[in-house]
Amino acid sequence: MSRTPNERSGPAPSDLVTRVRAAKSAQTKLRVAPAATRTRALERVGDFLTRERSRILYANGLDLRRAELEGLAAPLLSRLRLTESKLQVLQEGLAQLARSEDPIGRVLIRRELDRGLELEQVQSPIGVVLVAFESRPDAVIQIGGLALRSGNAVLLKGGAEALESNRILVEGLRWALAESGLDSAAIQGIEGREAFMPLLAMDGLIDLVIPRGSNAFVQLVQRSTRIPVLGHAEGICTLYVDRAADPATAIRLALDGKCDSPSACNATETLLIHRDALPALASIGAALHARGVRMRADEAARAHLPYAEAAGEADGATEYGDLILAIRVVDSLDQALAWIATHGSAHTDAIVSEDPEACARFLAEVDSASVFANASTRFADGYRFGLGAEVGISTGRIHARGPVGIAGLLTTRYLLRGHGHIASDYGPGKRAFLHRELEP
Amino acid sequence: MSRTPNERSGPAPSDLVTRVRAAKSAQTKLRVAPAATRTRALERVGDFLTRERSRILYANGLDLRRAELEGLAAPLLSRLRLTESKLQVLQEGLAQLARSEDPIGRVLIRRELDRGLELEQVQSPIGVVLVAFESRPDAVIQIGGLALRSGNAVLLKGGAEALESNRILVEGLRWALAESGLDSAAIQGIEGREAFMPLLAMDGLIDLVIPRGSNAFVQLVQRSTRIPVLGHAEGICTLYVDRAADPATAIRLALDGKCDSPSACNATETLLIHRDALPALASIGAALHARGVRMRADEAARAHLPYAEAAGEADGATEYGDLILAIRVVDSLDQALAWIATHGSAHTDAIVSEDPEACARFLAEVDSASVFANASTRFADGYRFGLGAEVGISTGRIHARGPVGIAGLLTTRYLLRGHGHIASDYGPGKRAFLHRELEP
Repeated sequence: MSRTPNERSGPAPSDLVTRVRAAKSAQTKLRVAPAATRTRALERVGDFLTRERSRILYANGLDLRRAELEGLAAPLLSRLRLTESKLQVLQEGLAQLARSEDPIGRVLIRRELDRGLELEQVQSPIGVVLVAFESRPDAVIQIGGLALRSGNAVLLKGGAEALESNRILVEGLRWALAESGLDSAAIQGIEGREAFMPLLAMDGLIDLVIPRGSNAFVQLVQRSTRIPVLGHAEGICTLYVDRAADPATAIRLALDGKCDSPSACNATETLLIHRDALPALASIGAALHARGVRMRADEAARAHLPYAEAAGEADGATEYGDLILAIRVVDSLDQALAWIATHGSAHTDAIVSEDPEACARFLAEVDSASVFANASTRFADGYRFGLGAEVGISTGRIHARGPVGIAGLLTTRYLLRGHGHIASDYGPGKRAFLHRELEP
Repeated sequence: MSRTPNERSGPAPSDLVTRVRAAKSAQTKLRVAPAATRTRALERVGDFLTRERSRILYANGLDLRRAELEGLAAPLLSRLRLTESKLQVLQEGLAQLARSEDPIGRVLIRRELDRGLELEQVQSPIGVVLVAFESRPDAVIQIGGLALRSGNAVLLKGGAEALESNRILVEGLRWALAESGLDSAAIQGIEGREAFMPLLAMDGLIDLVIPRGSNAFVQLVQRSTRIPVLGHAEGICTLYVDRAADPATAIRLALDGKCDSPSACNATETLLIHRDALPALASIGAALHARGVRMRADEAARAHLPYAEAAGEADGATEYGDLILAIRVVDSLDQALAWIATHGSAHTDAIVSEDPEACARFLAEVDSASVFANASTRFADGYRFGLGAEVGISTGRIHARGPVGIAGLLTTRYLLRGHGHIASDYGPGKRAFLHRELEP
């Protein structure tokens, strides 16, 4: 992975194809290797982080210096910065992956089709996965670790701002593969947009694309490829304050949903409030105002909100990614459900209510990836859900939905073991199948 | 669903959009209805088949007469023909679906994130599914039944040759929905290619396309839409006769794989044979020849096959869909694995061997949707696998792979029930998550 600076503009497509083919071939060795070999590779990555700590922090320092000169915003600088404690967290994550059960070959279904004819459905890696991410160099180790554990080859496209940090971390992953007797080509660092866009055309070689970044970026990727994309198009998350809402809970959830991380996809963007709950709105609005939240409210709501601006057409159906909240009044739970179905983005929606029936209806009827009762929309997250590392959050309905852990990198195969069984022996008037379920 | 004949050319796109929107809205009612309501609808479809038997067979007779006049081939006529016994099989399938557990809301994961904060991952319908199929009008009832059970709206695009049969069966499904207090718009019959192609552009309204038909058709659909497609691009299935193969088993599997249904996607197209097993090839070839199979063999194989033609470049990597078999000699199991990885289509591949180690390696290393040891490739089928009705066979690695049953029509949602929990209470130096697994 040592490269001369003039390669920064990205390699030529023919070189790229060679590298993706090499990744595909290396993936075969990675997935058929014993689980212990993948475990060893994960441990070696941890060793690399320990041994090369000063080189890693030096490389990161180069990125940070350049980013400061280029005037990168403070939150981005903080995401870019690697620290001793961030490296420690990465090592703990790797150790956890090394300890965790190897998913390859795990039996999901076992069924006796007939005497001596046994079917299994087993877990299997997807193949070659392209992951694009921004700023955070930690993602190289997190995604690389998940790829090693799940037997996938991965093409890692980081942001230009983390170039030096990403390079040395990719080098560590590749070194760990080679040290474990595996083919280091299973991990490929991709640099530059000129290299990324041609990859999106390789639908015969790449099996899945995971773009992590702005909505605009995710949508660009979705429009630019025939490869399946795991990502979230938009996060228009709604908090519905029911007529039976506890006002204190409504305030807590609104503040946390809007203010904890306003640019996150699971931040609350719209507050719907039942007409009967309007007496609580003034205190909700005051609390939001005290935290610097601008409100765009409809007429009925503005009567209770001295600071609110008038809501326009798009408010309530917009991902602000900022300290702005749309507020709208509804006459009923049904109207709230209809609003969410029409204007939401099926990412995460929550109800505040002390009425078990209202909560049950909301949970059953809202067709979003995550649906919450009396909990902040901000909980929609792989780490908080206990999925281990998060591959991404998907608003698609196919393959994986919501926060996605290692399961998003796995598919299945059917294995059938017989003794010379043939299909034409079965059918009307011939042998019948047993189809007896066995313990997996 | 009663239409005037001049609508046969397909409705205008604006009418189509209205119908798809109506399907989407009807799907909401279908999925939130109690399980018993969907069960009742399934029972009503069965009633319709009983009560309207003579009208159904009359409509089918119109299709058959036209098809005969147009000179449709005998196998297609046989697929098009509805009989008392076929209707009986459909009714049994409906009764089975009516008895089966309702999949909506089934809990897959239950996890305590913290005290009073409980996460569930539950099954949920995908939404609006477009299914295109040819000839067999039975598919209307099979797919419609699966859609009712799983809470999906379905747009059913049948072939022109089954127009009258499909119409009356779609009418039955819609009648059953209305009779059960559901919105009949959840089932839409789509007629004509002019109506089908515009549907492929409705990626905001339609969630999944399942094209059933020729490879050319599946590939056309895949190229024409941004909606996820569940289907199989090609079925180049290989039977590998290992050095430790039992010759009698090799003959049985080759005959069944090639001759049972040569046009099926799971038919065997290529026979690879280990050099050490060549003494058995003459009798395999004689058995195939006796069944009318033409063989295209490489030079080493032709020495044992008096009837075989010389294989060209493409033989061994072609889906013939006919009584033609490619035969190639390999020097080792490794060479067989490499051939399948390079030239196969990752649909279904099988090994014949009495050597448990060779079988284990083949099952572990062949990265195809279905991988068999000592069983015919023809077993790759939802009915034979015991999946209940088959939605299709997928060679994609995303969402569903191999023969796909009702699981292909389902996705998941995360439900979280809290008591005013907020995300900013958790993190380093604050509350820690429990992440305790509970029984689903």
